[in-house]
Amino acid sequence: MNKDRKYLIGFDLGGTKMLAGLLTRDLDITARNKEKIKDASKDEEVFSQIVKCLNALLAKASVKTAEIAGVGIAIPGPIDLATGVVLETPNLGFREFPLKAKLEKEVGIPVFLENDVNAGTYGEFRKGALAGYRHVLGLFPGTGIGGGIILNGKLYRGATGGAGEIGHMIIQVDGRLCGCGHYGCLEAHASKTAMAKDAAMLATTGGAPVMAELTGGDISKMKSSVFAKSIEGGDVQVAQVLERAARFFGIGLANCVNIFNPEAIVVGGGLVERFGEAYLAVAEATMRENAMPSLAKVVKILPARLGDDAAVIGAASLLAESLAGAA
Amino acid sequence: MNKDRKYLIGFDLGGTKMLAGLLTRDLDITARNKEKIKDASKDEEVFSQIVKCLNALLAKASVKTAEIAGVGIAIPGPIDLATGVVLETPNLGFREFPLKAKLEKEVGIPVFLENDVNAGTYGEFRKGALAGYRHVLGLFPGTGIGGGIILNGKLYRGATGGAGEIGHMIIQVDGRLCGCGHYGCLEAHASKTAMAKDAAMLATTGGAPVMAELTGGDISKMKSSVFAKSIEGGDVQVAQVLERAARFFGIGLANCVNIFNPEAIVVGGGLVERFGEAYLAVAEATMRENAMPSLAKVVKILPARLGDDAAVIGAASLLAESLAGAA
Repeated sequence: MNKDRKYLIGFDLGGTKMLAGLLTRDLDITARNKEKIKDASKDEEVFSQIVKCLNALLAKASVKTAEIAGVGIAIPGPIDLATGVVLETPNLGFREFPLKAKLEKEVGIPVFLENDVNAGTYGEFRKGALAGYRHVLGLFPGTGIGGGIILNGKLYRGATGGAGEIGHMIIQVDGRLCGCGHYGCLEAHASKTAMAKDAAMLATTGGAPVMAELTGGDISKMKSSVFAKSIEGGDVQVAQVLERAARFFGIGLANCVNIFNPEAIVVGGGLVERFGEAYLAVAEATMRENAMPSLAKVVKILPARLGDDAAVIGAASLLAESLAGAA
Repeated sequence: MNKDRKYLIGFDLGGTKMLAGLLTRDLDITARNKEKIKDASKDEEVFSQIVKCLNALLAKASVKTAEIAGVGIAIPGPIDLATGVVLETPNLGFREFPLKAKLEKEVGIPVFLENDVNAGTYGEFRKGALAGYRHVLGLFPGTGIGGGIILNGKLYRGATGGAGEIGHMIIQVDGRLCGCGHYGCLEAHASKTAMAKDAAMLATTGGAPVMAELTGGDISKMKSSVFAKSIEGGDVQVAQVLERAARFFGIGLANCVNIFNPEAIVVGGGLVERFGEAYLAVAEATMRENAMPSLAKVVKILPARLGDDAAVIGAASLLAESLAGAA
């Protein structure tokens, strides 16, 4: 690894925005560039915006490409780690897109791809709430529920890179229909999507007047901020929907504790950022009621600390380890 | 490690019997000694029988203690790996029993303890159905459901040695009461104990005449062999109970596939030994219906191959690695 290249770039490709960060080798972010994504469904359009966002970051920081060791990119969907192909992105147009090869050709430095949940968990492990632990998990309840697994201090990816589908652990046989097509997944009971389905019913049947006024019962308008307004405005039943989702999430935590015997689980994502303690306290209490006492005793449930920076730091860190031959 | 000590001993301490095996350094079993356990609830009694069983093995094989590198013991309950203390044994009298220290003093060679499910999974990994894979699990449905986890070719024990409580993964929120005191655990729906509860009800309400005749509705008499006789004798509803348990077990498999993305899962224990294909085929079909297709595609569900030898081989192998400083 060329020591003159004293910077790394970490890049978080979201569904609606992208965040590029310039990092030192010690993983300190020294500059950021954030852009909204336009024409998200067109892969070549988004690719051009990634290149522009990277170049804008370098210009902003007055750093030359020759000083960059590489770019680590957190992808919102499954990737093929070996080939650097983006397999699928529910919120972007990438399908079987050879992002690593194309971007390396374009920018002339190594590119490394990682799933965004893995990258976010790894960022919290390197620089955030999970620093200093060895056996940890990251869970991110939002539209879905993503999971990252770090065991013996290393990201665990499984046989084909697909490990950590903790949101699709069935916690209620024949339960609610999940986006994946199966019934009873954790995600189908505890995600913001699950909450929105209940809130829509309440909004259209008189049980949630504030939510009804804010959204007209339209699920696509029910963001975390809208849930907060509905609850603050007095929609008692919407508050119950949130609490119920948190309890189901706590069952998911309990299962993870029983299976992995981890030292800590970091919880991040939209619901936690918005509802913090209210959501996490209920989830943690449910976990402690339902996990094996000897395992519950040793585990810490921690709110994520790095926000949007987590995936940037994680992707940059995994890139650096990949360049050093260790990722 | 002294090379003159060319043998290992693997020892499976069951709830009702003990099996000692003499192994070469290549983990081939060259002699066995099996004994029934008497006075199982008395710890010192059982300890004496372990010593006797070991000495009888050596006598049988005409091998001296000086030729043995150590003894690996598979324990039916949680242990403290660092101190070699048996913490608890549901079916034996050991509670906070310093088995390693006492046995080392008695026999004069190193002793290594491992949980029996971990040992059994590791045995299948070293010499049985899981040989050649790197990311694998072992699940053993019987009275309970034990789980062993091998990732990157190493036994994964978790932060405090308690990982792998897969039987206590909740798959039905507010489901059946489990022996652990929680509701809806996999074990409460898919173990032989769960089946016996249903069979007892059927036996006492006319739904299972053969089972009624064989057991009088007494759960403690409902061993796997008795289930087999009941089903062969025409108890249709008991056959349905078995199939239902297998389906629930398949949900547990699906969750493991989604979480670990393993290459293979070995399934052993009483139910599989007795009902083999009938149980495993239903469980595997349910897994394939409920796991993420890309992960289900790559995983193999394999029946255990080594039977009682698995824990003997696994314990001996882990002992050898511990002596080499690698366990």
